[in-house]
Amino acid sequence: MRLITFERQSQPDRPRAGVLLDGDAVVLDLSAAAPGDAALGSLQALIESGEPGLDRVRELVARRPGAALLARDDVRLLAPLPRPARLRDCGLFIAHLEVGLRELARRQAAGAADPAAEFDRLMASGKFDLSPLFRERVMYYTADHLAVSGPDDEIVAPSGSKELDFELEFAAVVGRTGREVKPDEAHAYVFGYTVFNDWSARDLQAVLMRAGVGPCEGKDFAGSNTLGPCIVTRDELTDPYALTMTARVNGEEWSRGTTDGMEHSFEDAIVHLSRDRAVHAGEVIGSGTVPSGTALDLGRRLADGDVVELEVERIGVLRNTVRVP
Amino acid sequence: MRLITFERQSQPDRPRAGVLLDGDAVVLDLSAAAPGDAALGSLQALIESGEPGLDRVRELVARRPGAALLARDDVRLLAPLPRPARLRDCGLFIAHLEVGLRELARRQAAGAADPAAEFDRLMASGKFDLSPLFRERVMYYTADHLAVSGPDDEIVAPSGSKELDFELEFAAVVGRTGREVKPDEAHAYVFGYTVFNDWSARDLQAVLMRAGVGPCEGKDFAGSNTLGPCIVTRDELTDPYALTMTARVNGEEWSRGTTDGMEHSFEDAIVHLSRDRAVHAGEVIGSGTVPSGTALDLGRRLADGDVVELEVERIGVLRNTVRVP
Repeated sequence: MRLITFERQSQPDRPRAGVLLDGDAVVLDLSAAAPGDAALGSLQALIESGEPGLDRVRELVARRPGAALLARDDVRLLAPLPRPARLRDCGLFIAHLEVGLRELARRQAAGAADPAAEFDRLMASGKFDLSPLFRERVMYYTADHLAVSGPDDEIVAPSGSKELDFELEFAAVVGRTGREVKPDEAHAYVFGYTVFNDWSARDLQAVLMRAGVGPCEGKDFAGSNTLGPCIVTRDELTDPYALTMTARVNGEEWSRGTTDGMEHSFEDAIVHLSRDRAVHAGEVIGSGTVPSGTALDLGRRLADGDVVELEVERIGVLRNTVRVP
Repeated sequence: MRLITFERQSQPDRPRAGVLLDGDAVVLDLSAAAPGDAALGSLQALIESGEPGLDRVRELVARRPGAALLARDDVRLLAPLPRPARLRDCGLFIAHLEVGLRELARRQAAGAADPAAEFDRLMASGKFDLSPLFRERVMYYTADHLAVSGPDDEIVAPSGSKELDFELEFAAVVGRTGREVKPDEAHAYVFGYTVFNDWSARDLQAVLMRAGVGPCEGKDFAGSNTLGPCIVTRDELTDPYALTMTARVNGEEWSRGTTDGMEHSFEDAIVHLSRDRAVHAGEVIGSGTVPSGTALDLGRRLADGDVVELEVERIGVLRNTVRVP
């Protein structure tokens, strides 16, 4: 199933949970279909309700109560989880990180008298080597779960930044709370998948990450984590590791990658993130960026008003407009 | 007022909000005093209710309804906010960070043929210099708001760590949601203050922070953020920047500091953290560690079964037992 959070365009009251039907042309409004069923009141409640809640949704999808069907054009999609229980972005792809570090070294060398020699010197210094930790284990940073945006939201560069960039990622939504999850149980902890744009202010990030505590305002600003357009449930996406990922800017394809190049899987992440602590129903685990999935990696730069579309095959397209000075 | 979250020892049902009275000997159970008042059902709800909720609590404190008064010994204190809206720990003190970096260099040098010369070489390399960013702005890392523990909880070192350490901190709880908070408004955004122990697995942290994304499992593990014993409301703590802070281990004083040595105030942090994004009612902002407020800074080490007490004057004592291999 393709689950969404939406507002009605005509009479917006509160965010509602729904299901996309008929090639995404129709929305089943779960609150209208089952008034008073608290488990269907939000996607967070649905996730927490487990299989019984999902079974009720399946039954409504089969029954298609007419009064609860809306045209897709009559709703505005929000992030499927506007305030996830927690949001961490993991380094499950590795190649992007190495490309990004090379690009940072290239930029730093650009001002030297002999940029090529300076680039070689910087790369030889070891300061731009990717930490071997990223291969050995699942590394992550804790993103701001209160800075989530959704489809069609405008993304504004934070103060002091002139370089807003996208990151083409997808994410797993955790469906169950648990601790010390075993590798053979981990897949059952995945509720579903969504597209994730981990917006980054490159200029701030480059400076702030040197302090070692994380990206700070380089990745934490209003709306800096876009999720959507829907959550595709685990049963519907039988092979999440064979999906094409693309990024388009103003309709032009900038990046193309695939989810089959991941060094670590979401299941690895769930095992790792449940050791000595719990994973929680409704938390979101980002994949990290697919190789070449940023303007930085491509040596390009977004301009004010650019429309960025991230698409992950079988999940959907996440479209946002950027505002940069 | 001194606000707590607690369970009744005799008939534990659910966490309740309360007020410490009579020198902390008596607890006013707010749910029992005002049944059905949702704003008094939890401290998060009370914070979100603003001044009207606090006024109702003040009225109950004045009235002291007998059926809602419990002896302190009949309750078990929990973290005042068992699941804060968000939890970030800021570098508001600076001196501790410099001491900690010197100690890390000293340890790394200890294995060399000439440790003193190697220490000098490491310190001269610049790798153990504190980033000037910590003076220029409020730096922070995003801690795990789902890994909160409370008074008297046992804190267990995560797998792979043999060195669990305390950090003597205090924290401000944000009382209002807002964006672009002005310096002269920031104090009014503080709801109150609590003691904060930012438990750290030093061996993991030293390795993992080198990757630049943050402390990861070095500071994220079950119960790694202890809050308590109460939240002292802003009106009661008229000068939060003149408080003595002490750490005791098995009754012996290890650290003594004061809150008057802060490079940045909580108000500075609120201004900074509300730029280009919102601060939220119920989120917690840690101060960072007071100078010498860790075993690491002191060149000491906790052992299995040690009882660590952090005390901040006029707030209270936070006591936990540690489990290390």
